[in-house]
Amino acid sequence: MKASQRIETLLGGGDDGWGVFLKARRMIADGTPVTELTIGEHDIRTAAPILQDMHRAAMGGHTGYAAVPGTDSLRDTVAARVQSATGVPTSRANVMITPGGQAALFAAHMAVIDPGDTALYIDPYYATYPGTLRGASARPVAIKARAEDAFQPRAEAIAAVAPGAKSLLVNSPNNPTGVVYSAATMDGIAQVAREHDLWIISDEVYDSQIWEGSHISPRALPGMVERTLVVGSMSKSHAMTGSRIGWVVGPEAIIAHLTNLATHTTYGVPGFIQDAAEFALGLGADFEAEVAEPFRRRRALAQNLLATQNTVGLIPSAGAMYLMLDIRSTGLSGEDFALALLDAHHIAVMPGESFGAAAAGHLRVAMTIDDDRFIDALRTLCSFAAQHAA
Amino acid sequence: MKASQRIETLLGGGDDGWGVFLKARRMIADGTPVTELTIGEHDIRTAAPILQDMHRAAMGGHTGYAAVPGTDSLRDTVAARVQSATGVPTSRANVMITPGGQAALFAAHMAVIDPGDTALYIDPYYATYPGTLRGASARPVAIKARAEDAFQPRAEAIAAVAPGAKSLLVNSPNNPTGVVYSAATMDGIAQVAREHDLWIISDEVYDSQIWEGSHISPRALPGMVERTLVVGSMSKSHAMTGSRIGWVVGPEAIIAHLTNLATHTTYGVPGFIQDAAEFALGLGADFEAEVAEPFRRRRALAQNLLATQNTVGLIPSAGAMYLMLDIRSTGLSGEDFALALLDAHHIAVMPGESFGAAAAGHLRVAMTIDDDRFIDALRTLCSFAAQHAA
Repeated sequence: MKASQRIETLLGGGDDGWGVFLKARRMIADGTPVTELTIGEHDIRTAAPILQDMHRAAMGGHTGYAAVPGTDSLRDTVAARVQSATGVPTSRANVMITPGGQAALFAAHMAVIDPGDTALYIDPYYATYPGTLRGASARPVAIKARAEDAFQPRAEAIAAVAPGAKSLLVNSPNNPTGVVYSAATMDGIAQVAREHDLWIISDEVYDSQIWEGSHISPRALPGMVERTLVVGSMSKSHAMTGSRIGWVVGPEAIIAHLTNLATHTTYGVPGFIQDAAEFALGLGADFEAEVAEPFRRRRALAQNLLATQNTVGLIPSAGAMYLMLDIRSTGLSGEDFALALLDAHHIAVMPGESFGAAAAGHLRVAMTIDDDRFIDALRTLCSFAAQHAA
Repeated sequence: MKASQRIETLLGGGDDGWGVFLKARRMIADGTPVTELTIGEHDIRTAAPILQDMHRAAMGGHTGYAAVPGTDSLRDTVAARVQSATGVPTSRANVMITPGGQAALFAAHMAVIDPGDTALYIDPYYATYPGTLRGASARPVAIKARAEDAFQPRAEAIAAVAPGAKSLLVNSPNNPTGVVYSAATMDGIAQVAREHDLWIISDEVYDSQIWEGSHISPRALPGMVERTLVVGSMSKSHAMTGSRIGWVVGPEAIIAHLTNLATHTTYGVPGFIQDAAEFALGLGADFEAEVAEPFRRRRALAQNLLATQNTVGLIPSAGAMYLMLDIRSTGLSGEDFALALLDAHHIAVMPGESFGAAAAGHLRVAMTIDDDRFIDALRTLCSFAAQHAA
């Protein structure tokens, strides 16, 4: 029996770019120690007080169906957080709770895209983006951000493909590059969106990880609140990846539609997890800073180390738990470099190519292991690059 | 800014049939006590040992990303459960864990339906079915099961609309009717599916609630394993509605595709919930019987009561937590009767019309309150019907 064409073509065919990652996993499974710098997951667990609050909620009886768009109090809490961060009036009616940021990304596209519509996204991109758009039966079109521009997308590149498109997916702080979009970049995006009547889907799941400058939500720019859907999550900000809790923030009418969609696709999010999320958000900015601190520290260590050599370039990193390294001086592709590094030194990093053509000749390094091992691995990587460049 | 047509038309327009339900909720919110017989949710909470196991898993560190298709051990446990119940060889590769049965229903349709394809379902139907099919961009086509046939769908009615259709969604034990499909019904469904090359999506979330006869999974019938996707859930069997955990069981290739889809729509299910689900399944058939027992008991009480009068008919109920009552002798529609009953006696039941045209002149009664109040409410309902019939 045949599967749907939709699901058979979801991955878009061709190499999915996860070869190095899978090889590293196989080496680990076979007993070879590998220094793993591939994955965007904290090296800490979800904090015990959050889990204890979750248990309290469950034992207290919050084990039945929760309201599909989320509990009133969590929606209020998220709305207050977003309003306080952006200044944009935001209420419960602008918030739908989702089982994680990925579910929010998918739902947001389902809400604005009809089958065959064009949905834009920026390359380099988080690995699930093109498949998420295809899952919503969109025609995905990538817009290259260039290494020469420190991966800040240019408004004219967006404008060139905007006519007829329905939506543009942006992500700042950015995975995989660690770049935070500047005010000029965001203004350019907003201007194109207004001129071409685009929806902006703004993936802001790294908004608590800012090392330099500040995070700008496009929803806060003039004329954007009615055309922006913000995707948020507790995964990165609160080390709650496994709790699968996130949200969409957007216009009230879209949130009402998204609630209907959720009734038919997820039927809501566990109430005890929502209660724990509310508790976690109540821990405030200090807690979020504490969760982000190891990445801030490692990024500073990496900057210092990389400043001592000339082979490996560091894309100006201002946020998120990743570094994007330029290894084009070695003459190797990101993939060839990553495979060779894995074979020679048992260090696994992601080839830039895994995140799109724009990041060819680059590597994404996740700062998700302890400082000493992280810096040792980076040092080895630099020496390895220097050998190949020579 | 416009939403997608897909999401704007998700509910199909017209009355969504939830008027009585919403009116009852408003009355409760305004302080009027209402006897609530509308909702398919247990009057018990999730059992404490299951929640304690969940907490143990979370505190033990299962708080990061879990494998997208589910943990190996939960997939193995579900596979063993399905194989033992049906005799069909079933392994981990045939199982994908989902955040609840509704998510499984949606994913199963996404896996076999392309935009514009015809997807069949049986009327009366669980309220989310048509919207779930529309969410997958299918053209939903209902097949009426008739009250005169005790809501067992006829093979010839299915065959009449099968040419060109892609899938048929069936649900036994059935919500809203409480009917369990007979061997003859299931054989008829299987024969039409084979002849017209249909996928069967079999919603079996009430498979632990069987009061008479036995549950037949269409996947176990000849030539059906390669064309059947079974939707399962812990909501009803283990009173874990709020934990949002379920599964799809099907051919290995479809499960692989569904894993890709889940990577782009949910990114898996919390690991600590999966561990708790595995623990709950390990409690065995006795625990499931214990969870089902109140409904078995109340259904017997209702049968005895309804046998003492002639106005209200009981559709032969063999499973699930609902009774379908025939009130056509009153001359009222299900909706008019339900509204009048709510106004006069503050008893809320669902009009049959909420579940499709085939159940017009009927009521769905959820057996989800304690025995005494349940029987009192039924007695009042019968007297009320007798007054109107007179």
